[in-house]
Formats: sequence, structure tokens, C-alpha cells
Amino acid sequence: MRQSSRGDVDAFIVMDVMEAARAADAQGCDIVHMEVGQPATPAPQGARDALVRAMASGPLGYTVALGLPELRARIARHYADWYGVDLDPARVVVTSGASAGFLLAFTALFDAGDRVGLGLPGYPSYRHILKALSLRAVGIETHLEHRMQPVPDTLPGDLAGLILASPGNPAGTMLDRAALGGLLDAARDRGIAVVADEIYHGIDYGTRATSALELTDDVYVINSFSKYFSMTGWRIGWMIVPPDHVRRVERLAQNMFICPVHASQIAALAAFDCADELNAHRAVYAANRDLLLAGLPAAGFDRIAPPDGAFYIYADTSALGPDSLALSREILDRARVAVTPGLDFDPTRGASWMRLSYAGSTERMREGLRRLTDWHADR
Amino acid sequence: MRQSSRGDVDAFIVMDVMEAARAADAQGCDIVHMEVGQPATPAPQGARDALVRAMASGPLGYTVALGLPELRARIARHYADWYGVDLDPARVVVTSGASAGFLLAFTALFDAGDRVGLGLPGYPSYRHILKALSLRAVGIETHLEHRMQPVPDTLPGDLAGLILASPGNPAGTMLDRAALGGLLDAARDRGIAVVADEIYHGIDYGTRATSALELTDDVYVINSFSKYFSMTGWRIGWMIVPPDHVRRVERLAQNMFICPVHASQIAALAAFDCADELNAHRAVYAANRDLLLAGLPAAGFDRIAPPDGAFYIYADTSALGPDSLALSREILDRARVAVTPGLDFDPTRGASWMRLSYAGSTERMREGLRRLTDWHADR
Repeated sequence: MRQSSRGDVDAFIVMDVMEAARAADAQGCDIVHMEVGQPATPAPQGARDALVRAMASGPLGYTVALGLPELRARIARHYADWYGVDLDPARVVVTSGASAGFLLAFTALFDAGDRVGLGLPGYPSYRHILKALSLRAVGIETHLEHRMQPVPDTLPGDLAGLILASPGNPAGTMLDRAALGGLLDAARDRGIAVVADEIYHGIDYGTRATSALELTDDVYVINSFSKYFSMTGWRIGWMIVPPDHVRRVERLAQNMFICPVHASQIAALAAFDCADELNAHRAVYAANRDLLLAGLPAAGFDRIAPPDGAFYIYADTSALGPDSLALSREILDRARVAVTPGLDFDPTRGASWMRLSYAGSTERMREGLRRLTDWHADR
Repeated sequence: MRQSSRGDVDAFIVMDVMEAARAADAQGCDIVHMEVGQPATPAPQGARDALVRAMASGPLGYTVALGLPELRARIARHYADWYGVDLDPARVVVTSGASAGFLLAFTALFDAGDRVGLGLPGYPSYRHILKALSLRAVGIETHLEHRMQPVPDTLPGDLAGLILASPGNPAGTMLDRAALGGLLDAARDRGIAVVADEIYHGIDYGTRATSALELTDDVYVINSFSKYFSMTGWRIGWMIVPPDHVRRVERLAQNMFICPVHASQIAALAAFDCADELNAHRAVYAANRDLLLAGLPAAGFDRIAPPDGAFYIYADTSALGPDSLALSREILDRARVAVTPGLDFDPTRGASWMRLSYAGSTERMREGLRRLTDWHADR
């Protein structure tokens, strides 16, 4: 049976490492998981309680495509509360996770063959979704001196779009207000549409992340309930679009998704009232981060991008060996710690980088650090 | 800000009629809703109970992209139970509703510019999703003498793909085994990939719908928990793909969706154990259908496609007037019944057709029929 060329997206290189970690787990080995990209915690209690009530009282059929009006209004208020931005709820598109946000944004903005820039290292699905939509991902090398973020001078020519991520995955580094403004200005001057991924907002350490909406209305901002709100498996997120793009995104959403999951929308709305529980999760991430930043150099991870947010540390491991995939296998076998080689985030330079996630409990992170330190000492 | 041409999908023409129906409802008018495409019933009780239990016991984070193994196995068993087909669970892809199934199937199979055939009238989102993916929808006129389904002789040239729907929306007509086999053979001979939409299976009257999987493995079959299983708002469905397509669809699903909603997967698995409740819904649809088929001719709807399944009746209304959109407005205003003009399903001939949904309660359908009959008598 025929197959498309757009459907030939790369396999995740880490999958065999993750599979090995799962297999070791299943065999009763005690693996410390520093490869996972999601909180270990469930949706907040208040969110689950709200869903139990809603299931008892209504059919939870389709909602309108843009999402429940009360959820859109609550998301708009969130921009006032967190960023001091006055946002029209009509611009809020509730999405089936950030994933659906990317699919909607890319189809609304770009035609087949268009070039879209993105920083490397970066979330691998940006590239793969672009390819699946017959778009061309154009990688932009980033460097520690620019906090692993693109800068205006490095933007390639002939871009139709630019994806920005702050805090980014895998490095957790942020664009500050000036850096973000510089990129937005450069994009505007060149007619480049910007899609700003802000899904790690709320998980930051010391400095509040700047939203692109503080600087311009001429941007697609994508966010999610997966990370700060601890709702990965509920696949619920949102997107803010320019006023004159709402109708086209609505039509696309009606056809491509019908609506986000009604139950997830109910839970997400209630999650806004669970700040105490959610901020307690953030306090755990902060403690984990301090622990690892203090201890990792003694385990050989001494060249680290400054993690302003998210729950990742991206480390240059070239001093430990030239092949981060082989290194991750060694660490899994010898230290019983699962980590993610950088190759999926950066197909070339990722061979000498590694991502460590600290989304787990502090106790497990302490154990992981102890094992990595011992492994390095014995090496 | 730039906009793509692929994103210029048509608005649903019925939206203003539906909006008018909602507005009338909100003003306290008592509207009979025969325009809705979803059951009025919630997910089965057993499904909701299972989710309440699961929320109390686990974080419900991401699942693997292809879905929970136990749900994939249960779906495979469903093919043995309903169709006598022995299906490898490895070929089952759990999807975020049939919508995600279409996005995955079309990207896995077709490249930008490819032509994909579909019967008219048909589900409008087929055309709009194809356009959003830079593919070209090629409409195939269907006729009452072929039960509003394509036949091999009418397949256009140079097709990369063909979408079949049995029972179809809006007509509810089925392809029987011989007709389906003829189309599958013709497609195979011409190298056309077939995507078979079977989301109304389980809602049939007298004759069990034939699955394309009874005839070939060389097909993408898309199904959903939305209709028979009464779970529209949960956005959960599945797709069966040829064995050698599983890996590519898995990679696409990882990147485009990460996973279907975990909660919806839990509920869907339990829904398989709720046959009594679900078959009671079907009995209601059957009673509604009998009522309408007997009574509609007296209301002026006397030329009807034979509805073998689903919960729709598609009627040729040319004798009532040349413009089904104007007619639907008249019926809303005068009879206080909301119906769907055919234009979204068939951009040309739909002007003289109308879709009536009988997914509501028998009491409401009886009331709707009474109003339509009175309206027609007074006209």
C-alpha cells in the first residue's frame, strides 16, 4: 500500500534507551528516571473533583470548537493575573494539548514548502510535525553565550515562520524581555510569523518568564495545562491568536478536531483554583534543581546551560565521551539512571549533550545524583 | 500577519441556522433539535465509574502513542466478536477521535497535491481536512440508485486515495459486501489507498455493517467511540492500519498527538462492557427511525435515501423549494424544528436536500414530526 514521503518522520533516537529503562524496571531493577518529560503528579485534586461532579450531572458531549466560554474567559484572566496583559477572551483557542496548537498554528499560517526556523537544540516534534505538514524545518544553531536561544543575527533567510520556546526544552533557558523583543521585531520586519511556545511558563526559578503577548498581539502563543498544571495525560492546552485570525483557526479546529475533550476542559477550568497544590510541585522542582546544579559537576556534568525554568538540565557531555547515545546506555547499565541523549533535540551537536529531567521526587533525584557521582568516580 | 491558503477552509453553512436555533432556545422557545450529530446520552455508566476509580488511583499521565495495550487488545477482540475477523492488536492505533485518525491517515498516505476521492454528499470535514493538509478533495456524485455511495465506474482518474463511509453521513446508507468489495478491488487495481470510515458501525437496522477488514488488510479503517458508544465529547477512537504501516503511524502519532487522552482511554475500555446500555440507545434510534420513515412523507419529505444505519435521514426537498438553507430557516421559524440543509455535505446538489437527525428521544422526535406535519399542512 502506498506511503507518503511527508509521513517518513524520524523515529525518536531515545526510544530504545527508554525501552531498555522500562524493561529493566519490569525486571525489578530499580531505575532512577531522569529521562521523563512529565510531572509524576496527577491533575490537582480540585480538577479531578470537578470532573467527578460534572460526570454525574451532564452528558459531556461536544463543546464548541474554540472551547467552553467559561474556560476561555478564565484563561484570558490568567494573562491579567500573571502578566498584567488585558486579553480579549475571543482570542483564546482551547486546544487538545499544545500538540493540537502546533497543528492548528502551522496550518493556519504556512503553505506546503514554506520554511520555518527553530532553535537547535529544541523539542523534536517541532521538526517532525512540520515535515508531516509538508513544511521545511530550518534549524538555527544556538550557543551557551546566548542562553541556547536564537538571536536576530542568526535568523536564516527566506523564513515564513519562526518557533520560539522560552523556557525551552531541553535547555530550560529563557528569552528575557529584551531578547524576546529583539526577535519579535526582527521577525516583524521580515514578515516572519512567530509561534511562541510558552508551555513551561509557571515553572521558573527566580525570574518570571515573559510572554510574547506582553510585547505584541501579532503572534501565536501556545500554552498547555500539561506542565505547571500537572495534566499531561489530559491533552489540554490553549493558543492565543491575533484578532483577525480567530475565525480561520475556529474553522480549522471545527474540522480537524471538532473540540478538545470536554472532561479535560472541565478539569482544566478547576485547576486554576488549585494554586497551592501546583506551587508546591514547583517548590519540589526548585529543590531538585538546586540539588542537581550543586552536585552534577562532581558527577562529570560540569558544563550546563543555565536552567531558568522547566524541569530539565542540558549538559555538554563531550568530556565524558563523544557519543551521548552510548553514554546514556552506559549510565543506564552501570548507574541505573535513565537519561536522554541530546540527539533528538539536535541531530548533529546532540551527540555530545545530555538532558536530565528533575520532574521526579527530591528523594529520587538525590538517589540519582548519588548513583551518577559513584559511577563517575569509578569510571 | 501572514495567513496560509491551505487554512482558508470554508465555514460551515449550517452554523447560522444552528446559531439561530441556539438563540431561540436561549430565549425560551421550545425547539426540537433534529440538526445535532451526536447522541443525547452520556458515556455509559460503567465507563464513567471506571474513570472515577482510575482518577483515585493513578496520575493518568501520558500513555504510549498507540494507546493503552489493554485497550488495543480489547479493540482487536471486538473485531472477532462483531465481524469474525482475527486482528493482531499490534495493528490497532488508539486515536483522539476519528478526527485524529483522519489526520494520521492522510499524512501517512498522501503528499501535498495528491488527489483524494470522496462521495458527495459526505461528511464535510473530509474535504476541509484534506485542504488543510494541502491535499485535493475530488468529489464523486452519488445517486439514490446506488444508495448514495460511489461505484467503481464513477471513480475519477489519477486518485491517490479514496474515502469510503458506510453507513455514511448524511445519508445513513451502507455499502453491502459486494459493493464494498467492488470498490476495494478497483482501488487496489489502480493503486489507490482506501480510508474506510466505519464510525457508525453498531448503529444499524436489520443488516450488520460490513467492515472493510472482512475483505482486505490493505486498508486504513477508522472508527470511534463517539456514536454507538455514546462518547462524542471524549474524543476517542481508533484506526486499524496495514501491518507494515504501524511503525510510521506510531511515529506520526508520537509527534502530532503524543497520545490520546488517558482518561478517555480508561472510559473507552470500560465501555465495551456496557452493551446493555448501548443497545438500549440503539433501540431508541430504531424506534425513531421507524416513526420518521412512516410519518415524514406526510410532512412533504417523501424522497428519502434508505437509511441502513447511523441516526440520519437525508431527504430530497426539491419539491418543497429550491433552497434548502432558506427552507431550514423557514422550518426553524414556523415549525420550531432545527434541521440541517444539505449544502455542507454537497456544495452543489445539497441546495435541494436536507438532513434530519433522530439521535434525540422518541418523545422529542414524535413532537418534531407533529410540528413538521402541521407546518406542511398549513403551507
